[in-house]
Amino acid sequence: MTAKTAPVTSPRVGRRRGPTSTRDGVLAAARARFASDGFAATTIRRVATDAGVDPSQVMQFFGSKDDLFAAVMAIPATALARFDTAFEGPSEHLGERVVRAYLEAWDAEASESEPLMAMLRGAVVNEAAAAALREFIQSRLSHGMAGRSGDALLRAGLAASMLIGIIVSRRIVGVPALVAADTDRLVAAVGPALQVLLVAPTGWRRSA
Amino acid sequence: MTAKTAPVTSPRVGRRRGPTSTRDGVLAAARARFASDGFAATTIRRVATDAGVDPSQVMQFFGSKDDLFAAVMAIPATALARFDTAFEGPSEHLGERVVRAYLEAWDAEASESEPLMAMLRGAVVNEAAAAALREFIQSRLSHGMAGRSGDALLRAGLAASMLIGIIVSRRIVGVPALVAADTDRLVAAVGPALQVLLVAPTGWRRSA
Repeated sequence: MTAKTAPVTSPRVGRRRGPTSTRDGVLAAARARFASDGFAATTIRRVATDAGVDPSQVMQFFGSKDDLFAAVMAIPATALARFDTAFEGPSEHLGERVVRAYLEAWDAEASESEPLMAMLRGAVVNEAAAAALREFIQSRLSHGMAGRSGDALLRAGLAASMLIGIIVSRRIVGVPALVAADTDRLVAAVGPALQVLLVAPTGWRRSA
Repeated sequence: MTAKTAPVTSPRVGRRRGPTSTRDGVLAAARARFASDGFAATTIRRVATDAGVDPSQVMQFFGSKDDLFAAVMAIPATALARFDTAFEGPSEHLGERVVRAYLEAWDAEASESEPLMAMLRGAVVNEAAAAALREFIQSRLSHGMAGRSGDALLRAGLAASMLIGIIVSRRIVGVPALVAADTDRLVAAVGPALQVLLVAPTGWRRSA
């Protein structure tokens, strides 16, 4: 069992101190810009300005906006560890653990949350982001559901999709009732429903 | 209690037969294009070509791409009736009824499903679409939850967000496990979970 998240230092945007740190600075700037503005509204020129370099240097490192976006899109190892940990352990409270893992990943420090937010903001308009999200939903949770029976893959995919729906409503669309609720309240409301989806029908029954 | 959906004839894209039908033709073409390509990738020129008119006529009717999109984005009355009907009646099977209403609205004929799909595809990149989706999630389901107690508004917003997550995964992102499942299978898997979210904790209890 590993720690919930390994601390990862986030390279801040800064003056270049050589090829490697310039490239890292461009990546950090792109990650922040794609996460906040989305794929369509982000320009090479804006990323270059944020990173304090010339647009030609961004092109030299990454070739195109699509390639720059692809470099930003990798799912962070800290997020993967977080989701794996949520699926470890007993079926009891699995729903709550998965809900909390999702909410916390998108609320985590920039190095973890920005690539995830960039993926969500890009998924509707950019095929690379859509492919990354598809792969994430289909294979990440099926990994977590390995060994569980029946239509576990479908149920895992539905759970991931539903949790991403909550994050989009809360963080991108800004639905007031969801923005106002803190993590604990959301976990309390959604956890039992996810438990029924992922573990049912054995763990719950109708009492009426 | 009204019928589940009132049939609405969908004006097809066609040759102009006067100002009114030209405007309707442009609207139908825009609706289809925003639904399939999204807001960012849709151009006035392309809509004009689809409708068989000159781009200047599109501008004359609607002024801008933003205004054209706003005209397309109205939630269809058939969809509103569908969601209201799902919330009518007993709490028993409420979860299943709501899941089915969502899946069927986005699978309905073009006049109902295309404005909904345009709203989803546009919500990440266009503020008008985001506002429409926010309003839809916040007020439409709170209307349905009127008279229910406690944190009913939050739970209704969460349910709507989760169902929209499923539709995005299935229809836009294309997650294989969700694409392969038919409506009945999705209702069977998700209905009990939504029931717990919307009606719990009174209707269900842990049996273990």
